[in-house]
Amino acid sequence: MENLKYNDGRLYILDQTLLPNREKWIEIKNKEQAFDAIKKLMVRGAPAIGIFAGYAMALFSENNNIYKLKAYLDASRPTAVNLSWATGRIVKACESGKSLIDEAVAIHNEDIEMCRKISEYGLTLLKDGDGILTHCNAGELATSKYGTGLGPLLLGKEKGYDFHVFSDETRPLLQGARLTSYELEKAGVDVTLICDNMAGFVMKKGLIDAVLVGCDRVAANGDTANKIGTNSVAVLAKYYNIPFYVLGPYSTVDFSCKSGDDIVIEERDPEEIKEKYFEHPTALKETKCLNPAFDVTDHSLITAIITDKGIAYPPFDKNLKELIK
Amino acid sequence: MENLKYNDGRLYILDQTLLPNREKWIEIKNKEQAFDAIKKLMVRGAPAIGIFAGYAMALFSENNNIYKLKAYLDASRPTAVNLSWATGRIVKACESGKSLIDEAVAIHNEDIEMCRKISEYGLTLLKDGDGILTHCNAGELATSKYGTGLGPLLLGKEKGYDFHVFSDETRPLLQGARLTSYELEKAGVDVTLICDNMAGFVMKKGLIDAVLVGCDRVAANGDTANKIGTNSVAVLAKYYNIPFYVLGPYSTVDFSCKSGDDIVIEERDPEEIKEKYFEHPTALKETKCLNPAFDVTDHSLITAIITDKGIAYPPFDKNLKELIK
Repeated sequence: MENLKYNDGRLYILDQTLLPNREKWIEIKNKEQAFDAIKKLMVRGAPAIGIFAGYAMALFSENNNIYKLKAYLDASRPTAVNLSWATGRIVKACESGKSLIDEAVAIHNEDIEMCRKISEYGLTLLKDGDGILTHCNAGELATSKYGTGLGPLLLGKEKGYDFHVFSDETRPLLQGARLTSYELEKAGVDVTLICDNMAGFVMKKGLIDAVLVGCDRVAANGDTANKIGTNSVAVLAKYYNIPFYVLGPYSTVDFSCKSGDDIVIEERDPEEIKEKYFEHPTALKETKCLNPAFDVTDHSLITAIITDKGIAYPPFDKNLKELIK
Repeated sequence: MENLKYNDGRLYILDQTLLPNREKWIEIKNKEQAFDAIKKLMVRGAPAIGIFAGYAMALFSENNNIYKLKAYLDASRPTAVNLSWATGRIVKACESGKSLIDEAVAIHNEDIEMCRKISEYGLTLLKDGDGILTHCNAGELATSKYGTGLGPLLLGKEKGYDFHVFSDETRPLLQGARLTSYELEKAGVDVTLICDNMAGFVMKKGLIDAVLVGCDRVAANGDTANKIGTNSVAVLAKYYNIPFYVLGPYSTVDFSCKSGDDIVIEERDPEEIKEKYFEHPTALKETKCLNPAFDVTDHSLITAIITDKGIAYPPFDKNLKELIK
């Protein structure tokens, strides 16, 4: 399930806003189109945005000032750290006279390698036939290949494992329905879509052997910010004695952040809950909504954190650091 | 928030399928319209269906055989026990030469009285200013007045209590958004709509002092079947040390049912998860869904069961019976 293709000077992306109803590839021909593709979420997921921006920088710098181009593209999604990191790498390559497109390809290949490592470590914790619950989307559409949270499932499929995956639809933006169930189905992985409030039901029924999720930010003590609802899934997994695994690049661990208390949670527009995706509004115009984009899962609920540098078990404050010693 | 009006030989209902976008009252003039109103869920909620069917029996028996009329209306929603119970009461009144419309009014008034008692008992467990979480819809739209799960909140409002209510939207059928947030808003109760996966977030934030839910069936040991997702909310409440209250008529306790293991869970159409209410399908046609309509909350997660006969605390197998000794 590729989200991007680079071929002999031409860059194409899969428009993810149209999934799962339409699979449309678009050629990105100039910096304005690249800006729009990021801003309109046609390409999304931190690693995927970085890879795409790398190619866009390399391809469209010719007639543009590279510093201006970086500033321009960085503004398409100001909170995406991976975006400015990737555009910065292309600028550096330029300054040292290296090939820009080689650097973009390197960023791409490094992400594939990192995802493969995470997936391989993750796969050691699973066995053939396992029932897996996942929340939100951390697969190939958000990265390069395999993904993070979904990585062991997609790598496992290649190696002949049969997993039975339950995908939370992940309200309000439905990434679990629109993206996760879609890419697992396309990869031939057995997947069943459920509403978020059914996660406890499948756990209680004995259908789940492990929970796999991605992460947006991991604090030094292991507290993990991820898509809203992740923490509730972790509480349920603890109650039903099911291992709860967080998967992500080692770079997601933010050692300057002591605990989850230091992580500020973005609150988004009520329109996402009451209107977006629906044919008619589901509640009155005057009805208030609370719409946090993320929550923080307490480290005490996490069985292990799986990174490209290896697997960390509790106590995380000690063992996350040990991974790179 | 009335869902039904009877006035001098004329019966009107609020078409609940159009909420929250349109408040449309319909006069029910014959048995065919009454049948359709139940079948199409214009009137829903076990007590409300019973009350409506009572009036329909009384009004439309004149030119109809009353036994045939009962069989006809009972078939509009075969699994609704309250429906055949109410039509049966009108048949008995007919057999003993009593006024049918008086009997229908009696059914209606008895439900108001029962809801008031549940609400009064429930209110003794809450204090002014409390934050309350509720799931699905167990208010006036589903009953006569006050409701069961929402009863203490609506009665409390009348008595000047200020509660801060969080309403789970309750996927897939969105009763928490379409109905609960709607009727609380209309009653002037402070309500905030959230997605189901945000229940843990508001609990962790300290915004919730008690959880109130209705019930579809309570086993002799206190295990409680209710809308899918209720059990997960109960697990979260336990984890965050928040009291979890189940509210319903004493008749909901089924002493012939020893535990939740004896309760069969209805599985519904995947279309409800992937298509209903949405502008476009949220997943591929071939993607499987699991769509249980209910789940069973283990009695160990329930703080108290609040009925019109009083409040039962654990051990429920003993204390539910004690309520009517």
